[in-house]
Amino acid sequence: MTLHQTLPDDLRAALSAGVEAGFDRQIALTREMVGHASQRGQEAGVQALLFAELEGRGLDMARVPPNRQALAAHPGAGKWSDAHSTVPVVIGTHQPREETGRSLILQGHVDVVPTGPEALWSSPPYAAEIRDGRIYGRGAGDMKSGLACAIAALDALRACGWQPAARVHLASVVEEESTGNGAMMMHLAGYRADAALIPEPTGESLVRANTGVIWFRVEFSGIPCHVSRMGEGENAIDAAIRTIEAMRGLERIWNDRRHEHPLFAGLAKPVNLNVGRIEGGEWASSVPATAAVDFRISLLPGWSAAQCAAEIERHLRDFAEADPYLSQNPPRLVWNGFMAEGYALEEGSAAETVLSRAHAATTGQSLPSHVMPAYLDARVNVLYEQIPALNYGPVAGVLHGIDEWVEIASLRRVTLAIALFIAEWCGLEPAEALRTG
Amino acid sequence: MTLHQTLPDDLRAALSAGVEAGFDRQIALTREMVGHASQRGQEAGVQALLFAELEGRGLDMARVPPNRQALAAHPGAGKWSDAHSTVPVVIGTHQPREETGRSLILQGHVDVVPTGPEALWSSPPYAAEIRDGRIYGRGAGDMKSGLACAIAALDALRACGWQPAARVHLASVVEEESTGNGAMMMHLAGYRADAALIPEPTGESLVRANTGVIWFRVEFSGIPCHVSRMGEGENAIDAAIRTIEAMRGLERIWNDRRHEHPLFAGLAKPVNLNVGRIEGGEWASSVPATAAVDFRISLLPGWSAAQCAAEIERHLRDFAEADPYLSQNPPRLVWNGFMAEGYALEEGSAAETVLSRAHAATTGQSLPSHVMPAYLDARVNVLYEQIPALNYGPVAGVLHGIDEWVEIASLRRVTLAIALFIAEWCGLEPAEALRTG
Repeated sequence: MTLHQTLPDDLRAALSAGVEAGFDRQIALTREMVGHASQRGQEAGVQALLFAELEGRGLDMARVPPNRQALAAHPGAGKWSDAHSTVPVVIGTHQPREETGRSLILQGHVDVVPTGPEALWSSPPYAAEIRDGRIYGRGAGDMKSGLACAIAALDALRACGWQPAARVHLASVVEEESTGNGAMMMHLAGYRADAALIPEPTGESLVRANTGVIWFRVEFSGIPCHVSRMGEGENAIDAAIRTIEAMRGLERIWNDRRHEHPLFAGLAKPVNLNVGRIEGGEWASSVPATAAVDFRISLLPGWSAAQCAAEIERHLRDFAEADPYLSQNPPRLVWNGFMAEGYALEEGSAAETVLSRAHAATTGQSLPSHVMPAYLDARVNVLYEQIPALNYGPVAGVLHGIDEWVEIASLRRVTLAIALFIAEWCGLEPAEALRTG
Repeated sequence: MTLHQTLPDDLRAALSAGVEAGFDRQIALTREMVGHASQRGQEAGVQALLFAELEGRGLDMARVPPNRQALAAHPGAGKWSDAHSTVPVVIGTHQPREETGRSLILQGHVDVVPTGPEALWSSPPYAAEIRDGRIYGRGAGDMKSGLACAIAALDALRACGWQPAARVHLASVVEEESTGNGAMMMHLAGYRADAALIPEPTGESLVRANTGVIWFRVEFSGIPCHVSRMGEGENAIDAAIRTIEAMRGLERIWNDRRHEHPLFAGLAKPVNLNVGRIEGGEWASSVPATAAVDFRISLLPGWSAAQCAAEIERHLRDFAEADPYLSQNPPRLVWNGFMAEGYALEEGSAAETVLSRAHAATTGQSLPSHVMPAYLDARVNVLYEQIPALNYGPVAGVLHGIDEWVEIASLRRVTLAIALFIAEWCGLEPAEALRTG
């Protein structure tokens, strides 16, 4: 394997040394990012850190807050709710002196999912403890370490005296775990490039396709009364339970259609309906007046989110109309997050070829790819910008779970691979001295 | 019907006038009591009001706080939890100059259940609005108005120049809706009498029997993970739902035993398992790591609460051991409230006879009785003090529900009936002048 011919011959060795030289700083930044608990709506602290870090590297800084009107007008935006983050996306733009290469969006999200019961963690979820060659913590894998790899890749280039010869937008986004509206706002604000690279924790493999995701909430109400007067089926929690079972029927129907996409046809159950949250009632001795269930369901690439949403609505309505209780107390369906379609990355793009070479130069192996039955922000770039968007990042585990981790050795390799990718995709020019003030 | 021969001939008419004279004040007190939102643990305000009201009437005042050790040692006490109220029971004791009659416990609870969604109420639940001859509000029926009737009954006697010729403990208790530990603390503190009268909203009917109640909570945990990796049945909410269905099996078994008590054999479903509260998960896109369900189940008089609890435990364990997920992630069973047995009031007691006469003198009709498939504090007096305990109070509706109400005309009748009951049960002596200071 060789790098693009216009690149310096010793670039791999030099960049490897540059990654190594900056690695302690990279790990420190990663741990500091993990230390900022940044669940939905609470990303201001980590975004301030990222703004300062990118500004300190001389990038042209911008903050893009969510724009409800613009989001509401785009069919791929997630639905607004009270829980929606108002923290801006942070974008640092590198402008080359002379644009000779291909431009690039380097993007990562800093919002994290809830920790689950902290008592189950071996070390506190935001302590970013290092054990056995791993960093443990909520967001360590998904995906603060990946974003830090992208920053460190630019640092390594600079340490070797180079900078990209094309425009690079290095973005720290929010809302990836709930709506995808951070990436969507970057799109709506007009940021464009010839390719995107998103260092999600993919195990040093390229994501070939993912699923779309729709979130919905179903709210139930009834007539509360003393439990001594309860009849059959007058309980909002019971109604919620019956409805969950009914919605599993839709999950089965959708899984039966998995042959519609060749990349998912072989998976046993590519469509998952998750009952992620339930709450109902107030008191053991009162018949519950209210209940609510938060659902998440996935859809295969090529399926229209709008049509899937209509199917959800119809399936729920048909069930409710046939249910003695729900026909009298109709449930309310609320779209409260993702309304996102899946994507498949076309094989053979120039960006993929460049990443393959960078991966091979780093690892000595050819670039694997895989299908991921989950939401990824890359769908914004693939579906609405028609550019190749490469999800490629470190080896990590227990994402969204207890004792989430990322492998430190993998961070070294991924940082080098990203640096090599940037070098070939964007081209290189001698680094500018850092602006001061 | 005539009153006991030693009572003044014109007592009924005089007391009726006394009730009428004090009725505006009684309604004002009732509404003020309702105005103190006194859900579990929040009874301090209403108890301060009651303390001042009873003290102002010259009663010997006492506060009895919950004693965890003493409660834990009594098999009929409800189980302590973090939610347990620490607000003391308020007891005002009337001591006659000469004890010639039979002593009496007059008791009512001031804790109320949650309101449910306030938006569903026609008027705010603590506004105690008067419409159509009713007072509407949480606790208006269950049972602040009844307690106010008892106070007003003593006021009416005094207005006629009389006071009871026996010891009367007028008590405002807490925890009736969750453990029964307010009444139990009064028992443990040594308060005893020859009979008890509790003006629960019984529709001017005597409760002949009730059910016991057990509260329990089942907590589920699992291994949270990204929803894309979820397998079948690894979801704590799903486990909770399966367990709810399993516990309904126990409800069916217990209802099949209803013939064991003649008063309940004719009811279609005297044993109710209520799923009163559920919560689980954090996030639509994470497989829930935790869930918890609060259950309430009733038991027939004569059934041992300890044996019923053991049955619940066995039923849950047998189900969990056969469930692939729960056998690996055993649910936790927590007793977090009622551990109360039911009671049946023996027919033909002297107290019932006296109440029958008072009811007839008030309404011109014979005293009806009924069976109530719910918890009542009277079980403490019946089961552990072996005295007749009479649940007899006003006409009220939608208890524990939206727009709970009590009928104002019924409060007049019940107050008079209680006054007549006190007069005959305790006997009368000329009222003392109110002590001052």
